[in-house]
Formats: sequence, C-alpha cells, structure tokens
Amino acid sequence: MIRAKIHVTLKPGILDPQGRTIRQSLETLGFSNVADVRVGKFLEIELNQDDPVQAEEQLKAMCETLLANTVIEEYRYELERQPSRPLS
Amino acid sequence: MIRAKIHVTLKPGILDPQGRTIRQSLETLGFSNVADVRVGKFLEIELNQDDPVQAEEQLKAMCETLLANTVIEEYRYELERQPSRPLS
Repeated sequence: MIRAKIHVTLKPGILDPQGRTIRQSLETLGFSNVADVRVGKFLEIELNQDDPVQAEEQLKAMCETLLANTVIEEYRYELERQPSRPLS
Repeated sequence: MIRAKIHVTLKPGILDPQGRTIRQSLETLGFSNVADVRVGKFLEIELNQDDPVQAEEQLKAMCETLLANTVIEEYRYELERQPSRPLS
C-alpha cells in the first residue's frame, strides 16, 4: 500500500478568482493585512501497489489525465509507503 | 512578509463524495488499484506581518471563522518567513 499526497495549484500568473474572493472576505472580516491568497487542491490517494516506481508512473498519468488541468495548473506529489497491517 | 501554507481536510470518518467520484473516474480510466481518495483544500496566504506569533494567531482565527468548517473539517498550517526584496 502506498499513500500519495498530491498538490494541484494554479500556475504562477494565472488569475485565481476563488483566492481573490477569499482575500476580500477576510478583509471584510477584519483581516486587513492579507496580501494574497491562492487556492489549490490537496488530494490523498491510497494505492494497492507496493512498487514506488510503478506508483509514481500511475500518479503522473492520473494527474495528467484527470486530477490537474495542465494548461493552467501544476501538480506535485509525495509518496509514502504505508506499513502493512500487523498480523496480531 | 510571512507566507502560510494551509491544508484543510475532512475529518476522518466524514464521507467524501468528491473523493469517491474521483476514485470512480480513475477506475473508469483504467486505474483499478486505487483504494481511496480524499480531497481537501490547499491555501497559500501572504500576510503583511513580520511577527510569527501574531501571524499564527491571525491564521488560526481565519481558519476558524472562514477557511474551514470545523464541524467536519480540520486544518493545519505552516509559516514561512519571506525574505524582504533585495535593494539592488
């Protein structure tokens, strides 16, 4: 079992209307020193896979085909091997 | 200037319909070994603030009042001091 943590964020320079809305809401709430807000996605995926090389290939394909819109978004991931469940 | 990275995720046990939809889509695309998908938010916030203690207090208040729904979500943040712009 491998667990992957994936961050999908807008590329630098791409307008972030959601972030802008949050910044304005924060200002309305009294947080006047917020210079910028950028919003992205954070995904945790568990794979029934023990080979980190294959897992990485799969994750890359998942990001390219479904999880990120690579025209405007970039992604990065970290893999973490999950210990097998103890037998006791 | 302090930059904060905030992760907002569903609490364990809370149903994640978005994650479930993504898992099903991945399966349709041929990724048959995906055991679980959980989706969260990732925010990057720049604060015009140099005191990390005050920044942390503000971030906590922002998460509690706007960024996270603490009934079903949990949040964590990391602070990172941004260097001032070089004069040259």
